[in-house]
Amino acid sequence: MDGIGIVGAGIAGLHLGLLLRQHNVPVTIYSDRTAEQMAGGRMLNSVAHHHATVERERALGVDHWPVEEFGYFGHHHYLAGGPQPLVFPGFFKAPSRAIDYRIYLPTLLEDYLARGGEFEVRPVQAADVVKLSERHDLVVIASGRGNMSAMFPRRADKSPYDTPQRKLCAGLYEGIAHSEPRGVTMSISPGHGELLEIPMYSAAGHVAALLFETVPGGDLEVLAETSYDDDPAGFEKLVLEKTRQHHPSNFERIDTGNFHLTGPLDLLQGGVLPSVREDYTRLPNGRYVVAVGDAHTVVDPVIGQGANCASYSAWELGHAILEDPNFDERFCQKVADRRRNSVHATADWTNLMIRTPPPPHLLQLFVAMSQNQAVADEFTENFSWPDKQWDILATPERVRKFLAGHGMN
Amino acid sequence: MDGIGIVGAGIAGLHLGLLLRQHNVPVTIYSDRTAEQMAGGRMLNSVAHHHATVERERALGVDHWPVEEFGYFGHHHYLAGGPQPLVFPGFFKAPSRAIDYRIYLPTLLEDYLARGGEFEVRPVQAADVVKLSERHDLVVIASGRGNMSAMFPRRADKSPYDTPQRKLCAGLYEGIAHSEPRGVTMSISPGHGELLEIPMYSAAGHVAALLFETVPGGDLEVLAETSYDDDPAGFEKLVLEKTRQHHPSNFERIDTGNFHLTGPLDLLQGGVLPSVREDYTRLPNGRYVVAVGDAHTVVDPVIGQGANCASYSAWELGHAILEDPNFDERFCQKVADRRRNSVHATADWTNLMIRTPPPPHLLQLFVAMSQNQAVADEFTENFSWPDKQWDILATPERVRKFLAGHGMN
Repeated sequence: MDGIGIVGAGIAGLHLGLLLRQHNVPVTIYSDRTAEQMAGGRMLNSVAHHHATVERERALGVDHWPVEEFGYFGHHHYLAGGPQPLVFPGFFKAPSRAIDYRIYLPTLLEDYLARGGEFEVRPVQAADVVKLSERHDLVVIASGRGNMSAMFPRRADKSPYDTPQRKLCAGLYEGIAHSEPRGVTMSISPGHGELLEIPMYSAAGHVAALLFETVPGGDLEVLAETSYDDDPAGFEKLVLEKTRQHHPSNFERIDTGNFHLTGPLDLLQGGVLPSVREDYTRLPNGRYVVAVGDAHTVVDPVIGQGANCASYSAWELGHAILEDPNFDERFCQKVADRRRNSVHATADWTNLMIRTPPPPHLLQLFVAMSQNQAVADEFTENFSWPDKQWDILATPERVRKFLAGHGMN
Repeated sequence: MDGIGIVGAGIAGLHLGLLLRQHNVPVTIYSDRTAEQMAGGRMLNSVAHHHATVERERALGVDHWPVEEFGYFGHHHYLAGGPQPLVFPGFFKAPSRAIDYRIYLPTLLEDYLARGGEFEVRPVQAADVVKLSERHDLVVIASGRGNMSAMFPRRADKSPYDTPQRKLCAGLYEGIAHSEPRGVTMSISPGHGELLEIPMYSAAGHVAALLFETVPGGDLEVLAETSYDDDPAGFEKLVLEKTRQHHPSNFERIDTGNFHLTGPLDLLQGGVLPSVREDYTRLPNGRYVVAVGDAHTVVDPVIGQGANCASYSAWELGHAILEDPNFDERFCQKVADRRRNSVHATADWTNLMIRTPPPPHLLQLFVAMSQNQAVADEFTENFSWPDKQWDILATPERVRKFLAGHGMN
């Protein structure tokens, strides 16, 4: 038997592979794409790594992008809809960082190979997993691509939506001066959706990712449905116009004359169906397969938790492998137990953020954040600690008690 | 609302109360007995505290019995049934300790009161819990007495037995020289049951607890069914005779002329039905109640895990209360998640130890222990870490892999 087989070379697969290689566990990662294909393809996402993830990257020896240059320090909130917009920042205890995954993943793959990890480029389908399970001590599914996720039943109790709640339009742009201090801007246009502006490092250098989270049927949905390739200038003009109307705090930093998508592949449109799936499955041959990352939990990108959750989950799984390499149902249950609180909190919190209309206790918290810097900072810091965020946000009573703890009623 | 209400003044209730008082949380413990009634009544159990529990006692500031005088250092095994008996010791990394609960509980109750804990002597029934729940922020059920446990449904998946698997006869005796080095003796008479001889400190000083775990229908069952009070001398003679026949390694240290029960109340006969129950319940008024200790999990005393598990579980519950005092279903689920592995492992391991006939992989491990001191020491040390013990023992494959790791096939 040949160590651990990991299907998928995203952050979950790579962080898991790197952790295991640090402890000399044999690992093979299976990917349907070469490093060159990852590097040269369409933008993969617009993800930020919160500092809990940066801390794991340090521990894995893959902290290649000093936060002093590549990091950012908090969130700038802009919430329209009231008599006047709520505008306030919140700060982390340590910087977050956003690197284009077409740079990030190939770099980590190189690290992984240099540390003795095996890498096989071949498409893996669910039907191939039985064979892989007979080659490896344990197979981990770290890819939601194709039909892999379907191996793990979707949990109705943790998956409240039947359709994507946002249509997405994520792109990399030049011509936007970054916010001060450098941070992500979270602008909310009630009924129409959010704009996340993320300081990102890509092949074009330090640019801005604009992630439009558009409410289906709202005025911004058109952004997710308009083709860039058909009319690049028209598309950019549309983005400018919608940003001006709905997200003025972003618009005011745009130099409209120099505003451009950084390249035709630097755009991603679509939507995701939020899903929490079972942690593991038993194959017909009696062997167990564990899900991690998108194969386990898909969240809307609105609060940038997906990759961080995948990294966290890979980290817990990796330590479970190192502590008790007996890959039976007990092992799988222990993995489920140790990551459940944080992973489910990530899904529950994200699903709350995209509920339409937004629940009153969420609005109550936002109002309090605009009035109390400590409240805003705690909410912002908790982007690294989704379980703690959900301790605050899970119910109206919890929000009330949290605010009372900050002397607010 | 008045802090935390705890029903039950056993180890779970007291450890929880002491932990919360260290952090100035208001606590009321309800008990159906006064300290004097506990101190002066019939023997409560024959329990040992493994060093993980002693460590918690240190943290709680209730480490009143220095292990140098009151502790013991390992287990002496005697397993008959093969061509010749297997006789071997195993050692802890730190000493365990057994104090008569008629001394232990009143002492801790005194500590608890001195630290500002409230104590109310009154019988509480399941029907009273709704009213208590309206007085306290959270009610914890830390007593399996009366009908309290029935509030929490028994989990069939973790409760494999319908009847007690052992009939018990636990008593305190003088006239037994302790083993060298001082330790618990675990003697097994296949088909008839185990004898645990525990160096215990009681009102009579340093004595020996003999806990006969008798298999129903076996030759030792009579010990659990014979009255001491009807014929004290006859009872002691019977104990001597059965010990001589079935547990010779204990018998050889007995000074038969001085062998006596230390008092008519120092004997406990009966049996327990092993049960794992749900972690919490929701009352008709919408409030949640958490189970801990015997209300949550009852294990046969054969490996002395019950009190240690109750202390561990109270510790985890207490820290959950300190970290997130929002006593809703999320709170209860987090408590369940954080203690599940260890508590279920305790139950699963104990239930394996009393299976009749013993499973082959358990016997395989015992044979290996008799041949390899490191294996014996790891098994013995794991009396403090039931989750690690179950990592070894959960399946025949796990035992095989554990022994292979020790170079044994």
